[in-house]
Amino acid sequence: MSTKISPLAPSVVPDLPPVPGVRFATAEAGIRYKGRTDVLLALLDPGTTVAGVFTRSRCPSAPVDWCRANLAHGTARALLVNSGNANAFTGKKGRESTALAAKLAAEVAGISETEVFLASTGVIGEPLDASKFGNVLADCADKATDSAWLEAARAIMTTDTFPKLATRTATIGGVQVTINGFAKGAGMIAPDMATMLSFVFTDAPLSAAALQGLLSRGVQGSFNAVTVDSDTSTSDTLLAFATGAAAQRGAPVIEAAGDRRLSGFRNALNSLLVDLAQQVARDGEGARKFITVKVEGAVSAASAKRVALSIANSPLVKTAVAGEDANWGRVVMAVGKAGEPADRDRLSISFGDIRVAHEGERAASYDEEAVSAYMRGDEVTITADLGLGRGAATVWTCDLTKEYVAINGDYRS
Amino acid sequence: MSTKISPLAPSVVPDLPPVPGVRFATAEAGIRYKGRTDVLLALLDPGTTVAGVFTRSRCPSAPVDWCRANLAHGTARALLVNSGNANAFTGKKGRESTALAAKLAAEVAGISETEVFLASTGVIGEPLDASKFGNVLADCADKATDSAWLEAARAIMTTDTFPKLATRTATIGGVQVTINGFAKGAGMIAPDMATMLSFVFTDAPLSAAALQGLLSRGVQGSFNAVTVDSDTSTSDTLLAFATGAAAQRGAPVIEAAGDRRLSGFRNALNSLLVDLAQQVARDGEGARKFITVKVEGAVSAASAKRVALSIANSPLVKTAVAGEDANWGRVVMAVGKAGEPADRDRLSISFGDIRVAHEGERAASYDEEAVSAYMRGDEVTITADLGLGRGAATVWTCDLTKEYVAINGDYRS
Repeated sequence: MSTKISPLAPSVVPDLPPVPGVRFATAEAGIRYKGRTDVLLALLDPGTTVAGVFTRSRCPSAPVDWCRANLAHGTARALLVNSGNANAFTGKKGRESTALAAKLAAEVAGISETEVFLASTGVIGEPLDASKFGNVLADCADKATDSAWLEAARAIMTTDTFPKLATRTATIGGVQVTINGFAKGAGMIAPDMATMLSFVFTDAPLSAAALQGLLSRGVQGSFNAVTVDSDTSTSDTLLAFATGAAAQRGAPVIEAAGDRRLSGFRNALNSLLVDLAQQVARDGEGARKFITVKVEGAVSAASAKRVALSIANSPLVKTAVAGEDANWGRVVMAVGKAGEPADRDRLSISFGDIRVAHEGERAASYDEEAVSAYMRGDEVTITADLGLGRGAATVWTCDLTKEYVAINGDYRS
Repeated sequence: MSTKISPLAPSVVPDLPPVPGVRFATAEAGIRYKGRTDVLLALLDPGTTVAGVFTRSRCPSAPVDWCRANLAHGTARALLVNSGNANAFTGKKGRESTALAAKLAAEVAGISETEVFLASTGVIGEPLDASKFGNVLADCADKATDSAWLEAARAIMTTDTFPKLATRTATIGGVQVTINGFAKGAGMIAPDMATMLSFVFTDAPLSAAALQGLLSRGVQGSFNAVTVDSDTSTSDTLLAFATGAAAQRGAPVIEAAGDRRLSGFRNALNSLLVDLAQQVARDGEGARKFITVKVEGAVSAASAKRVALSIANSPLVKTAVAGEDANWGRVVMAVGKAGEPADRDRLSISFGDIRVAHEGERAASYDEEAVSAYMRGDEVTITADLGLGRGAATVWTCDLTKEYVAINGDYRS
């Protein structure tokens, strides 16, 4: 865990209200780190539904396998997360470890193992000693409170330099509901999904199917639109839990994601997911600049997104931004290599509001001074208009600095 | 152009013999650099055939368009290359510039513009003032010699730290023929193709179709198997010229790439292309380690290559090698994200000859000391055996260092 906070961190950590039906506790189990919390236990009231989106890696971690299997039941009563060890690529030991972790959590919560969800983040390939959970879980269950959001977000951090939290409210059938979420992730970040863990909690009364529908769609424009280094983790996990407690205050139970009464909730959820995803990019390892890449005029939205990711993942674009150079030639290169329809002679590129290239050539005259001043800021927007159609997409990333290389290369030296 | 030579440069620059029918001269035209050559003119005897492979970028440079058009004629009499300006994304001015450059070269050589091939490398988006060629081409034509290989290789360098040359011989119908080549490229290097220019010359009597067939196949295991930073240039150009002069010594004229009499020549050409491609990876910007990635046991060769490129392009794998850490967890991650068939529990990973992971787990016991010693060397081979089939592929890359970021980000500061 780095001690220096990213210069792109939000200036204020939001204060999250309770979500009725959700309680937390954290603990120091000594999984790997010393002197910090590394275990999070969330307890969920009966009736809580669950949805999830996971890494598309062909080599997923053992906890990802575990969650995928339990998701079929649609209900959740506990979430157990640890940092320091990803329990990934640990073979048979990994499966034994998830089974033991779930058993221990089920025991202290008095629930079935099929209602326990697991996530692990940290080193890959080292066996996770799940018996360490046994030392702390009973105490966690005893002291769990509805207000430990910040502590929860801190316990799951690895190379993150700041905890990532967000909160939103919405109304369903005239009743206000809360959506809280937190996330971790700073490196090995790329769609699908950002290498990260993220957990969302709401008291809205939603069926598991409705929640899954909302989550699967929401992830496309948020966690699947953020990249730090194009590397995808074995452990990416986004879980959403809906306790349904708002039903006691008169909120209707919603069975389908397409229900019109969810429009406000859907917007609030999507906004929260974007907020968390952007916080992940803002904490990109070594990041000094937050980059928004907008692609317009593509033949389709899917094409626009592929071009945007090609730009956002280009080491040469990212190092140029680090060097505060509006190097649009590298943007052209990244558009060209995406393999999507593009016509050199229709392409326009802007940095911020300043158009530097238009219809295949350097823009006739633009204020070099103004561009330089713009690039010195710590938020940079690159817009590429392909001039072909109406497809548009936005993705977020950060610059590529020597610090990224130091964090990921110097850890042994 | 960097002044510090890559530590991975070959210890000896090969001495290239003449190729009958080929003469060179270089000049200082002041395109962008001062005090160094930046123009190369090659003159080719009548009857020279030509083949080419180009960038797959959707935004290719004007010279790439020019070469593609002329390739249809199948014959070449001159090659004009400049460094310092890529003449890419220069719109209508770019097309006018290539037309003028070809006209000037055709005039001094007394040939048709359709027999002139062009390549440019350097800054993107700046108009190239082709009239500068007019100041030097007549002198180049006068002083062209059959021995200026090293000068030719130097004139086309940009961020390269050493000139890249290779030579091979083969026999066709019992007659010895020569194949010489040189290349440039150090950044913006990825398939398809490596961001690079490369030119190959032979006195073998080959039809344009035969030469094209050999070149197109040869590029797959060489320039399309090397990556520095996953960025693909707008200007990638590989051209091969066959003067046919060996026919005067009795070599048969070969019309088809599949002709059995070409087996020795094909091997020699492929070996030369691999040699040049590896030199490009060895000169990867900031590189301190040359990495060979071998993937075995994939479901097909194509699948193996995609997995190998996923590993070779992973910033986390490349920074780990820079940090001299045999971080096989990151290799697992890169295998998983490739999107190709893979089974976590059958995967084995080796660094050099040391197997560090086997069938989905850390190998029971391996000599940590030996692995560390191996990683300190400047040549690292990573082998991933997927355990699924017989598909195999090899690609080459280099590590990702702070120096890469400095070269690509600090150039303005």
